[in-house]
Amino acid sequence: MFGLIGKIRAHPGRREELVSVLLSGTGAMPGCLSYVIARDVADADALWVTEVWTEEAAHRASLSLPDVQAAIAKGRPLIAGFDSQTRTEPVGGAGLPG
Amino acid sequence: MFGLIGKIRAHPGRREELVSVLLSGTGAMPGCLSYVIARDVADADALWVTEVWTEEAAHRASLSLPDVQAAIAKGRPLIAGFDSQTRTEPVGGAGLPG
Repeated sequence: MFGLIGKIRAHPGRREELVSVLLSGTGAMPGCLSYVIARDVADADALWVTEVWTEEAAHRASLSLPDVQAAIAKGRPLIAGFDSQTRTEPVGGAGLPG
Repeated sequence: MFGLIGKIRAHPGRREELVSVLLSGTGAMPGCLSYVIARDVADADALWVTEVWTEEAAHRASLSLPDVQAAIAKGRPLIAGFDSQTRTEPVGGAGLPG
């Protein structure tokens, strides 16, 4: 499996708009096992996106999906920056299909 | 929903043991929607644990489950420290039940 854990910083006061945009982009994504959008409780402009994919190629392919491309275009002006982005190799746990 | 994103540092060379211990502790946990254990690709001793719970009380209650208590006892000597621990409020996405 392939994973990403990213902390995204919205422009001040724009986090909820960014949440809506990200939710709109996470429909049918082949190979996506988990994609969770979460507010940082202690940081009013920060969001965390944690992703699990069957393999890295599935994540790469998702970036060409129309819904994802639309979300990227709509989300970009709301994003001040990426505080961190980590590549992971998910091993298992609970709540993953299979 | 209630979430946690933690970066755990194993003692040098002990990460795979810690993975096994954590996997053994993630059986039936009421209120757990997702619990993913992942290796950091760029940091040989680091693991990420990303959790989504129905509510914080469910997470707290899980710490009393026998399997979880056993995993905590077995895992503690393998852990050098916690590089980061973030509380989140998951909003949605893909791969969550319901």
